[in-house]
Amino acid sequence: MSTENYIPKTRLEAFSDGVIAIIITIMVLELKVPHGTDFASLRPILPSFLSYILSFIVLGIYWNNHHHLLHAAKHINGKIMWANLHLLFWLSLVPFVTNWLGENHNESWPTFLYGIVFLMAAVAYVILQTLIVEKHGKDSLLAQALGSDWKGKLSLMSYVSALGLAFINHWFSVALYILVAILWLIPDQRIEKVIEKER
Amino acid sequence: MSTENYIPKTRLEAFSDGVIAIIITIMVLELKVPHGTDFASLRPILPSFLSYILSFIVLGIYWNNHHHLLHAAKHINGKIMWANLHLLFWLSLVPFVTNWLGENHNESWPTFLYGIVFLMAAVAYVILQTLIVEKHGKDSLLAQALGSDWKGKLSLMSYVSALGLAFINHWFSVALYILVAILWLIPDQRIEKVIEKER
Amino acid sequence: MSTENYIPKTRLEAFSDGVIAIIITIMVLELKVPHGTDFASLRPILPSFLSYILSFIVLGIYWNNHHHLLHAAKHINGKIMWANLHLLFWLSLVPFVTNWLGENHNESWPTFLYGIVFLMAAVAYVILQTLIVEKHGKDSLLAQALGSDWKGKLSLMSYVSALGLAFINHWFSVALYILVAILWLIPDQRIEKVIEKER
Amino acid sequence: MSTENYIPKTRLEAFSDGVIAIIITIMVLELKVPHGTDFASLRPILPSFLSYILSFIVLGIYWNNHHHLLHAAKHINGKIMWANLHLLFWLSLVPFVTNWLGENHNESWPTFLYGIVFLMAAVAYVILQTLIVEKHGKDSLLAQALGSDWKGKLSLMSYVSALGLAFINHWFSVALYILVAILWLIPDQRIEKVIEKER
Repeated sequence: MSTENYIPKTRLEAFSDGVIAIIITIMVLELKVPHGTDFASLRPILPSFLSYILSFIVLGIYWNNHHHLLHAAKHINGKIMWANLHLLFWLSLVPFVTNWLGENHNESWPTFLYGIVFLMAAVAYVILQTLIVEKHGKDSLLAQALGSDWKGKLSLMSYVSALGLAFINHWFSVALYILVAILWLIPDQRIEKVIEKER
Repeated sequence: MSTENYIPKTRLEAFSDGVIAIIITIMVLELKVPHGTDFASLRPILPSFLSYILSFIVLGIYWNNHHHLLHAAKHINGKIMWANLHLLFWLSLVPFVTNWLGENHNESWPTFLYGIVFLMAAVAYVILQTLIVEKHGKDSLLAQALGSDWKGKLSLMSYVSALGLAFINHWFSVALYILVAILWLIPDQRIEKVIEKER
Repeated sequence: MSTENYIPKTRLEAFSDGVIAIIITIMVLELKVPHGTDFASLRPILPSFLSYILSFIVLGIYWNNHHHLLHAAKHINGKIMWANLHLLFWLSLVPFVTNWLGENHNESWPTFLYGIVFLMAAVAYVILQTLIVEKHGKDSLLAQALGSDWKGKLSLMSYVSALGLAFINHWFSVALYILVAILWLIPDQRIEKVIEKER
Repeated sequence: MSTENYIPKTRLEAFSDGVIAIIITIMVLELKVPHGTDFASLRPILPSFLSYILSFIVLGIYWNNHHHLLHAAKHINGKIMWANLHLLFWLSLVPFVTNWLGENHNESWPTFLYGIVFLMAAVAYVILQTLIVEKHGKDSLLAQALGSDWKGKLSLMSYVSALGLAFINHWFSVALYILVAILWLIPDQRIEKVIEKER
């Protein structure tokens, strides 16, 4: 048994919870209070609000899945800690791209950059997941439960497609971002089943 | 026993604590430091300060009740996690509407939107509570303890009334927001009693 | 044994930690990056930086003492939770008054308001401490340990004096704020001794 | 056994996690959304983004090492708590200097100040580590594991050199900051080995 097994996962979970909680909350600071006082004055911030909702949901999905993945994990090592920080890095850029997209919702580049950050976050999640599975063995219940990970693969493919589509019609990209969110809103029962089996 | 029972509630509590702690604290960033240096220069930010106090108290109430509700809960599932994120979403908008109301305290629309966010948060809380009760069974001590939930129903009715009143005289709405806060400042002894019974 | 005893103190501690951590950190957002790029361009933000240091230390003291007080506490009830939120409310205003003082360090009113917030936080701490002692009984080791609480009383008196002095020479007030901080930098060994005795 | 041993380290860890999580996340608020909507409009914020990445990694290293150090620690006292707050103070200034460096990446003084904050954080870490080792005894496994602490000493020397080099060619300083980060990216196996031995 290597020394690496001895890092407790509680502080990793607590730190990740803290960072995701802050990211999900500071986004609201970018919703600029309208100067007017009537209903019409809210209309200009509607795109910002809609991109806020989308980012809030995607961050909620990451927190949810991260929660499940770490719960299923038994062993943590230095590599996993850095893979986790790498994921948090890309998530930390979500407020920035959400803001740029919200203020320029009809433009290709903001739509593209939004997709880049989400693609990189998805890649970072796959790396984290792979390292955790590797640590637990190819035959572990966790590895079996994830199976082909079609959701993860489909998400990556959708984000890559969205990047190209952003320059044809950026609404296609936005539609794909929403579809990926819907895909993940269904909780990841694969890991829940593993937890059940182990009891 | 379904797989859904196995999600531990500690991270849900920790994440909610984090989000509510951040929301309650970043509101103060919207209190703009006055340009002048005398007492009179504080007067323009008085409405912002008063709406800050009201929002702080309401968020404190939510944290308090959330604390009690989750403490009484034994089982968590994916639906409950999303219902909780839904509640946090509406609470995350509190700094935005507090700011708009603070800067335009004599206007109907900011008062209306403030009420909308509080109404939706109250609805989200009822959904969360209903899902938790459902999970524990209609005959559970938790379900019995909540009883008719007259406080929840009265709050919803007050917020709905406040929305209409905002266009007649917005001070009526503000008065209702304050009354609902006072109503909840009394801690929810129903759940505390259940916890006692179970011991 | 009343129902009130059953609220666990862990979430109260976690929430307070979160709020104080956020308050102590967001203050740095108010340190405006200088427009120039030489050493002289840092001089205008020196007063802001010094008031940041003072507020950081005072918040550190509150966290430290709060940590000790809650650690010694065995029982929590609804009243204590609200007394704690009341304390957090006044602490949440520290970034605002720090900022106003930092930008107007030669003025009476910002110095006065800084003192008001610190006086109210001190009062809130005394209320919290009194409620916790009350809950544990006048003869409890906690009550004995706090004893005459001369530090708390001296702090309150100093802050009250500082309020008046702000209009004579505000440097007297600032000196008193610093003296109170130094007074508390020595850790509160009274409660540590109680914890020892109980073992 | 002195009274000082009785402070549990969990709240110290939780508070530090909270503060570092907030520092690492609020830095992104300083990445100003570009006014343009094309790829070229991102170019002006590239230096800010690169300094954000560097600061994110250094803060990640501090969190990682802090995590290991506290995990190895058994005893906490008042001095250690203040040494920890002292470390958090310098880390809290990272967003400020990152921002100044990002906006003026070709200038000596911002590069110098960035180095000052990192040097002081490194000094604060050494103080914290020394106090923890002192508390555990010169012959403790923790003390043995840290050994000569060549990494810590090399970092301090590099930062001091970087301060002087900032006025000759600031790119030398930046190169040193990056080299120190790479040096620490390798997880601190000394403490992990101690944890193993103690089992």
